[in-house]
Amino acid sequence: MRAILVGFGFIGRNLVKSIRDKLAVIKSFHPQFKLVGISDVEGFLFDEEGLDLERASSISKITEYLEKIHEGSSIELIERSEADVLIEATPTNVVDGQPGLSHIEKALNLGMHVVTSNKGPLVIAFKRLMDLAKRKGVELKYEATVAGAIPIFSLVRDCLRGNHVRKIYGILNGTTNYILSRMHFDDISFEVALREAQERGIAERDPTYDVEGIDAACKVVILANAILGKDAKINDVKREGIKRVSREAVRLARKAGYAIKLVAVVGDRLEVGPRLVALNHPICVHGTLNAVHLETDLAGEITIVGPGAGEETVSAIINDLLSLPMSGGYR
Amino acid sequence: MRAILVGFGFIGRNLVKSIRDKLAVIKSFHPQFKLVGISDVEGFLFDEEGLDLERASSISKITEYLEKIHEGSSIELIERSEADVLIEATPTNVVDGQPGLSHIEKALNLGMHVVTSNKGPLVIAFKRLMDLAKRKGVELKYEATVAGAIPIFSLVRDCLRGNHVRKIYGILNGTTNYILSRMHFDDISFEVALREAQERGIAERDPTYDVEGIDAACKVVILANAILGKDAKINDVKREGIKRVSREAVRLARKAGYAIKLVAVVGDRLEVGPRLVALNHPICVHGTLNAVHLETDLAGEITIVGPGAGEETVSAIINDLLSLPMSGGYR
Repeated sequence: MRAILVGFGFIGRNLVKSIRDKLAVIKSFHPQFKLVGISDVEGFLFDEEGLDLERASSISKITEYLEKIHEGSSIELIERSEADVLIEATPTNVVDGQPGLSHIEKALNLGMHVVTSNKGPLVIAFKRLMDLAKRKGVELKYEATVAGAIPIFSLVRDCLRGNHVRKIYGILNGTTNYILSRMHFDDISFEVALREAQERGIAERDPTYDVEGIDAACKVVILANAILGKDAKINDVKREGIKRVSREAVRLARKAGYAIKLVAVVGDRLEVGPRLVALNHPICVHGTLNAVHLETDLAGEITIVGPGAGEETVSAIINDLLSLPMSGGYR
Repeated sequence: MRAILVGFGFIGRNLVKSIRDKLAVIKSFHPQFKLVGISDVEGFLFDEEGLDLERASSISKITEYLEKIHEGSSIELIERSEADVLIEATPTNVVDGQPGLSHIEKALNLGMHVVTSNKGPLVIAFKRLMDLAKRKGVELKYEATVAGAIPIFSLVRDCLRGNHVRKIYGILNGTTNYILSRMHFDDISFEVALREAQERGIAERDPTYDVEGIDAACKVVILANAILGKDAKINDVKREGIKRVSREAVRLARKAGYAIKLVAVVGDRLEVGPRLVALNHPICVHGTLNAVHLETDLAGEITIVGPGAGEETVSAIINDLLSLPMSGGYR
């Protein structure tokens, strides 16, 4: 199996390190596994014999691997590589899904499997991409797009076979959960908690995408389409952020045995907004943790909790990679 | 796929109902699926064309299906049935694993897959049974033996591929968790909480197996062997029950932000005993819920929560059944 990685940011760099560390395990699933290419905005690395994983793990930008890299786009790498799988890890763009959308479409059209951590293309075109993958007889896998390291899609697909999932709800954004947890435990305002989160690198300088609930709404769209079989778009999600959650409201909730959490609901209605959650409820997790709660017909109510972002997300990409069918001729 | 069910107690009867309700889904995995036999201590039903699922779902003992059932043992049903899979759902016996152990060995030796909800055989002979299954080229699946509906084994196997699990801990017994939760929230003694649990059918008349931590210790043995690759026996588990947990201790813990829980630890040490758990910790679940916490190298810390017993356990058996390879000739 020949893999290429498009996108060499935080997730991409950590993935390369994990591929290096876990090469023996990966080869026990895909004996001929090789990482043959990496691209970012500056160009791409390509070696059909496989890149040097030790060197690729030690760099922060691909020009540090080779003085002179191939000048050309990620699309050129995808076309040239003859890879069996594209790992797409460019940043999420919820306006038009680009550039990830083009990368994924190109790879699927060339008959490559795709594993992605990029929500944008799935929010914009979930059904079209899944149909394309099916037509081409390849897999499009996206475990890393929702709830970080929590393997929610494979949990439903591989561990709850025979179950019908009626409804999903949970905490799907680590940044806002960190802010609300600080407000809950330390009785501080939203503004102070946000500033602290920014200083610690948990919130971005422009925190809109997280605090307005846009990130969580993207995840609602993907869950709705992937698990409940809907054809939802981001505008179908009723959304409210956490900016207007006051210190006083958090304090009153706490006294009554609740926390205010940014809760995502995926059922008949699609919603993201601040909600009271009983402190004893399994989804009432704190800090940057995420939690996903499933209502099923056979297994009852199942909750899964884990890191919602960060390097642990690589676990989801690796599981997707190891779940792919072996490619023809065991190459 | 021809299936037989040995054991027609609470789990067996609920399983037959779920097979009836989910037949279309089951057939989407195993097109020729038929339940051809059911046995209990009184004898067995056998029809190679498949039993009438509607009738089998409406009875509480197998003599209600037919006035005259086949007189003979479960072993005779296993031998005569030529089934592809045995579903073993007789009660757990931790002393010698019988009669489940003989049923499972017989079926594996005949080249049948086995799906079991019975802890006994696995506690007594995990490694021997897994080796036998491997030698015979069949599967032995046991999702229902630990934590009820929580699919812990398939979670590790199918959703966390590439991860190394370092340690597991959690709440693995619903009866004791119910008792401790009542003590925590209602400030009552162990004796009163136990009596109430018995009245509600959550604790058995002889509660030893649960309150002494024996049930949880069995689950520790299975987790240790299945996930951490150990060859543990029940005597390797350091065990303490909850009888000596006082009302005063529970009250003090609560005031300090903790609950006393019967915690099972599966790591370098194997332990079951009452422990302080922070109220904010993801495993701090209440009532009859169970929770399993995994420490992994890639995904970080993952917790999964769900019903630890009851009819929801059928979900685990169904998932095991649907995870089996299709049998030769698609029969």
